[in-house]
Amino acid sequence: MTYAYLGPEGTFTQAAVRRLLPRTRKVPHQPFPTVPAALDATRRGDCEAAVVPLENSVRGVVAVTMDQLVSAGMHINAEVEVPVTFALMAPEGVRPQDITRVFSHPHALAQCERWLAERLPGARAQTAASTAAAAQEVAAAGAAGGAAIAAPPAADLYGLRILATGLGRDARAVTRFVSVAPDWSRPTRTRQDRTSLMLSLGTSGPARVVDILTEFDTRGVELAWIQSWPTGERLGSYHLFIDVEAHIEDPPVKDALAALTALGLGVRFLGSYPRWGAVTA
Amino acid sequence: MTYAYLGPEGTFTQAAVRRLLPRTRKVPHQPFPTVPAALDATRRGDCEAAVVPLENSVRGVVAVTMDQLVSAGMHINAEVEVPVTFALMAPEGVRPQDITRVFSHPHALAQCERWLAERLPGARAQTAASTAAAAQEVAAAGAAGGAAIAAPPAADLYGLRILATGLGRDARAVTRFVSVAPDWSRPTRTRQDRTSLMLSLGTSGPARVVDILTEFDTRGVELAWIQSWPTGERLGSYHLFIDVEAHIEDPPVKDALAALTALGLGVRFLGSYPRWGAVTA
Repeated sequence: MTYAYLGPEGTFTQAAVRRLLPRTRKVPHQPFPTVPAALDATRRGDCEAAVVPLENSVRGVVAVTMDQLVSAGMHINAEVEVPVTFALMAPEGVRPQDITRVFSHPHALAQCERWLAERLPGARAQTAASTAAAAQEVAAAGAAGGAAIAAPPAADLYGLRILATGLGRDARAVTRFVSVAPDWSRPTRTRQDRTSLMLSLGTSGPARVVDILTEFDTRGVELAWIQSWPTGERLGSYHLFIDVEAHIEDPPVKDALAALTALGLGVRFLGSYPRWGAVTA
Repeated sequence: MTYAYLGPEGTFTQAAVRRLLPRTRKVPHQPFPTVPAALDATRRGDCEAAVVPLENSVRGVVAVTMDQLVSAGMHINAEVEVPVTFALMAPEGVRPQDITRVFSHPHALAQCERWLAERLPGARAQTAASTAAAAQEVAAAGAAGGAAIAAPPAADLYGLRILATGLGRDARAVTRFVSVAPDWSRPTRTRQDRTSLMLSLGTSGPARVVDILTEFDTRGVELAWIQSWPTGERLGSYHLFIDVEAHIEDPPVKDALAALTALGLGVRFLGSYPRWGAVTA
């Protein structure tokens, strides 16, 4: 089993890969420069699964992953949560007052924007493909006024010095990652499972959401996550992502899906997998 | 009436201001460097209203606006949709093969990322505070390998030459803007109104969504928009934004709100205003 992940070494996604299978010390995993590239490698069969960030407790969903889930025909086989702590790091000799540009992943820059506005108001934010890519790039450029926002271990990996920690808006910030693959791997049923579904609302739009949720609610299936995502066709046209606290083989879920299909709604099964809190880490 | 907007001259937000009051040729409006700055000016009373982008048909909600709506205690008094067409522009003499950096607003860069990956794979994306700010900056820097992605009229405004048009993922892309102010201005009731609400789900989380939607559905109030937004406290903790196709003074809406309050849910009224399609532009 080789995991494709958003690299290089030292990203939060790599931390997610390590958390996902903590008992195996050496999980083979291969870095890719972008989320779509990691998913492409998995679709081609070069890697068995890809680990991708799905949502963050401060800044909401990760748009590139949502887009890929809609279009890439992938299944979710596991989820994992990773605490997100941001550090400002720069090459040796760079002082805070020297910093003119701060590199990081757009999601990280967004979570740290208050800190940056207060502490480094003159510095310009520049996007990088990942937090670790930002650290790598700043290290390669040397002491040219560049600093990176990344996970603290990235400083050691790329020979940078940490100038500040705790840059994020919330110290308890968490990102949820999912492990995806072309096929559903049927993870062992745990009685604490989650099932992810994608529904196409069609021309009826948001007005159908209540019908969908009611089919689960009346059967005692609890909703864990609800997220609309634009189809791109027009305003008001959405896909609906739903996570429910149950397994696809639980009779109430089967019944609800049959009812939704009878209503003429497109339903895509994304996967059933153990809820992160239920897994012994 | 002075509108605060995300400037400088030539942003899509400025186009939204102009569309909002098309009969008045000269709507006084004042540019601000960021969405929070525009809202601050309105909260202080320096401007009567601020026009801010809320969601895009391709890339979903605008995170900074959602954050501000949660925290800034504003009301929505109007909505307006603006078609979004992106052009690549650079100073005279810059050829496509010279471009090393492309500046734009993060939302615009995201909508154009496929085009950029295919046509300018070697160019680095750099964020600017707005599309027009990117054009202004590229113009100021001169022929140094920089290009901007902005609305076509920004090229004339800042003396740039358009190198390509139609960069976005979807030619029909539309952004919905809202006009917000500290108080609700009670726009004339049109029988084609929309009401925006923000609900706090509390500790019960997404499981309450079906209860909320059912209160409107059973009273025949149609749902127009549903959007969860993280509270920042933990994964699974959300505010719920809902637009319904009705006016706050319609009895079914009043009844539904009373029922929701009785359920112990926090409800914030954001505003009732004419639906964009219903307004004579």
